[in-house]
Formats: sequence, C-alpha cells, structure tokens
Amino acid sequence: MADNTTILKLGGSVITEKDDPETLDGAALESAAAAVATALAEDDDRRLVIVHGGGSFGHHHASTHGVSTTEGTRDHVAVTDVHGAMTTLNQFVRSRLHERDVPAVPVHPLSLASRDANGELTLPSDPVETLLAEGFVPVLHGDGVAHAGEGVTVLSGDEIVTSLASSMAAERVGLCSTVPGVLDDDGDVIPRIESFADAADALGSSDAPDVTGGMAAKVRELLAVDAPAHVFGPDALAAFLAGDDVGTRIE
Amino acid sequence: MADNTTILKLGGSVITEKDDPETLDGAALESAAAAVATALAEDDDRRLVIVHGGGSFGHHHASTHGVSTTEGTRDHVAVTDVHGAMTTLNQFVRSRLHERDVPAVPVHPLSLASRDANGELTLPSDPVETLLAEGFVPVLHGDGVAHAGEGVTVLSGDEIVTSLASSMAAERVGLCSTVPGVLDDDGDVIPRIESFADAADALGSSDAPDVTGGMAAKVRELLAVDAPAHVFGPDALAAFLAGDDVGTRIE
Repeated sequence: MADNTTILKLGGSVITEKDDPETLDGAALESAAAAVATALAEDDDRRLVIVHGGGSFGHHHASTHGVSTTEGTRDHVAVTDVHGAMTTLNQFVRSRLHERDVPAVPVHPLSLASRDANGELTLPSDPVETLLAEGFVPVLHGDGVAHAGEGVTVLSGDEIVTSLASSMAAERVGLCSTVPGVLDDDGDVIPRIESFADAADALGSSDAPDVTGGMAAKVRELLAVDAPAHVFGPDALAAFLAGDDVGTRIE
Repeated sequence: MADNTTILKLGGSVITEKDDPETLDGAALESAAAAVATALAEDDDRRLVIVHGGGSFGHHHASTHGVSTTEGTRDHVAVTDVHGAMTTLNQFVRSRLHERDVPAVPVHPLSLASRDANGELTLPSDPVETLLAEGFVPVLHGDGVAHAGEGVTVLSGDEIVTSLASSMAAERVGLCSTVPGVLDDDGDVIPRIESFADAADALGSSDAPDVTGGMAAKVRELLAVDAPAHVFGPDALAAFLAGDDVGTRIE
C-alpha cells in the first residue's frame, strides 16, 4: 500500500450513548465528521480508512444474544440483530460524513471476513485498498463474522484496525476513545508505551463492560502493529489527523 | 468445498417490477422464498447460496448515474444510490426468507470484491463458504465494486454466480429468470446447450435493456462454469431445487 494511509478508529463509546440502547451521540459524531472533513480538505493525497465500534448499537444485541468474540451463534435472528444494528450505525456515520462531502462508502466485515476453527481472522484488504486508491473513504465497523465451528462470533473494531494496519502497512493508526489516552494509576496520560510492561500496572481493568475487551486488549494489539498508534480523546482528533503526537503513543 | 452446494440466482426481473423504479414483485418473491424453504426443509445437508439481481432497484440508479460494468464512478452519491437500493432489495429478500425460517444472512459484494485495472474480478469465497458450513444461507446481490482506475463499476449477479460457482466448485447452478429457459427463434425452450454455437442464432438480443447484459452473456458465462447450470422460469424453481432437469441445461 502507498504511504500516507491513516487508519482511524472512532470508538463506539465516543459516537453513541453507551448506556442507552441504539442511541447516537449526535454532537460527538458531528464533531468527528467535521474534523475528518477538514483534514481531508487540507491534504488531497491522504488516504483514510475509518473503523467504528459498536457502542450501544452492537454491544447491546451481542450481550442479549450471548455472542462474543469466542462464543458464537447459529441463530440468524441474532446475526440479523447485531449486524442490522451495526449497519444502521454505519449509515449514521456515513451520512454525517457525506454532509461534509467526505466520500465515505461502507465496507461490512460480515461480508468480507471469516475466522477458522482456531479463531484466526482472515480479512482481505483488497476492496479497502482499491476503494482508497480510487479516492473513497472506506468506513468499516465492528460486526459479526463467520467462525468455523462457532457459527457467527463478534469481530471488534479494534481487531479490524490491527488486521488492516498490518496487511496494508498503514503509516499511522489512531484510536479515538472517550479517555484522553492510556491513563496511569493517578489518572494521568501515559505519553508513550513501547512494551506492555510500561503500562501493566494501570491496565488491570476498564471502566465499562465491553464484550470486545478494554484498554489492556487494545494496547496489546497495537503493540503488535508496525505503525505508530495513538490513543486519544475526541478533543485531540483534529490534532491527530494534522499529524501531531497526541494522547498515548504506542509502538 | 463440500458437495451438495447449489448456487441459485433469482433474477432481478423475477422479484421486482422491472419497469417501476424500486418496486418489489411481492408475490413472486414470496413464491420463491416458499420454494427455497420447502427445499431446505426436505434436505438438511443441502448448502444453498442465493444471489439476486438488481431489477428495478439497482439498474434504475446505475442508469441514472451512467455506471455500468465497465464505466465507473468516483461519486460517492452514485455509489450510495446503487448500493443503498440493492441493500434495501437484499433486506426484502432476506425478510421473506426469514418469515419461512430460512437462515439467510447478507453478503454485500461491494464489501468483498474488487476489480483490477483489467476489470478482472477478485471475489474471495471464504466468508460465503464459512457461513454455509455453519448452516446459514448467504444471500448476495448485484452491487457496485471497487475497480482500479475506474472508481466503482457494476458487478452483476450473473458475474457473482459464475465466480462463486468456479471458486467453490458448486454442484449445481440455477438461474431463475422471467423466461422458461433459453428460447429458440420459435419461442421454444432449447433443452440443452453445450457450446455457444448451439444457441447463437437465438441469442442476438434480449427483451429489456439491462446494464449487465442479457441472455447471450449469461450463456457465455455459464458455459465457462464446470457445474451444470439451468436457466428456467419461476414456475420451475421448486423442481430445480428438488434436483430435476428444468428449462435449459447448460454445461
């Protein structure tokens, strides 16, 4: 893949009201869309992939049906509930981007990815790379995924980010979260993490229940990616897209 | 892929009112869904992939935006119109199947496929095969597809069928069309086609304008597939699914 590819994760907790089922945080999403539009307008060569989490859309249905990244379902109603809610959220995200002339197009992971019997993910990046090269902004999302021996399990936005970052040799990865970075025991942002030991003490738990893992899992996955990754809050999104070091830098 | 995989194309002209934009032929779709449900209930081991065409949903928008299988667009509004209409039709198809307990799940080709600069299609079959093995009925559809150098072009349901039939080594392929088979100059069904010459005289033209090609293109593509293919009308769908030779057999 060409240089200059950024993969941006918009956390589900950022763009939805995580405690109210299927409720958008409209103001937060508008603000994120505006930051993306500004960044793209300032740099025509930038290639941007957006991945968003499930927040109160996906997690709600996954919990109801007892589906996780390892526990699957063969019930098409469960699959339809999870995937349908995520598709709805994806439409909201794309429409807010379209309002600002960001050429967002959907890429639904349930259509693209699969897991083998060991849970190993195959997520071909060809469609995403071709869409990028043609000037579009692919928008993916946490979703269900066909899983050999399990039916359909959950595929988190974070796992999509790490998979694409590796297969596409992305230049930068950003995780826009509800917190301003990975926090230490005093609640201060850890500026740089180069090994899990750098933050192990602080990563014992996460604030809210999350079927797809909390900050510890994010850090472990981002350490395995070649590209530098940043974890930051919504207020730092514009600065991240402008190329600044924001929040916690993980590499 | 295991034996016993059938790929069934439901023609866009069968399940929609082709002359009225975005209008379903509800009775025809219900009838097709009932035939599918009956066939699956009678044979637990059957693996069925359904692909549907665009009919008055996809073709309408593709024509409006001047998009075809070779002429692309880089306008996200055009992509959203075509893909959105096809996603809506796909939801109708799946909901009618769900009403009869067919475990249909969507696979959107825009998320999965891409074309290189020569127009050659890459359509990984892993997600479809994993969904099948887990007991689901994947439902694909004509769609847009990222196309190197062209933006997004049209991917026809027929092209999806021939691609999957080859990559998955399907046992049987069925094209449920508005006509009872490939017709000769007298309007009679040609029972068997083993080379294009067998039907060349009759395949000069097709009834209605169709951005993705008429019967001649279908026959050419089906001749290139290893599995026997049948072209038949809606009345013969149940018999096809029961294993009968119906309409025109192409191999």
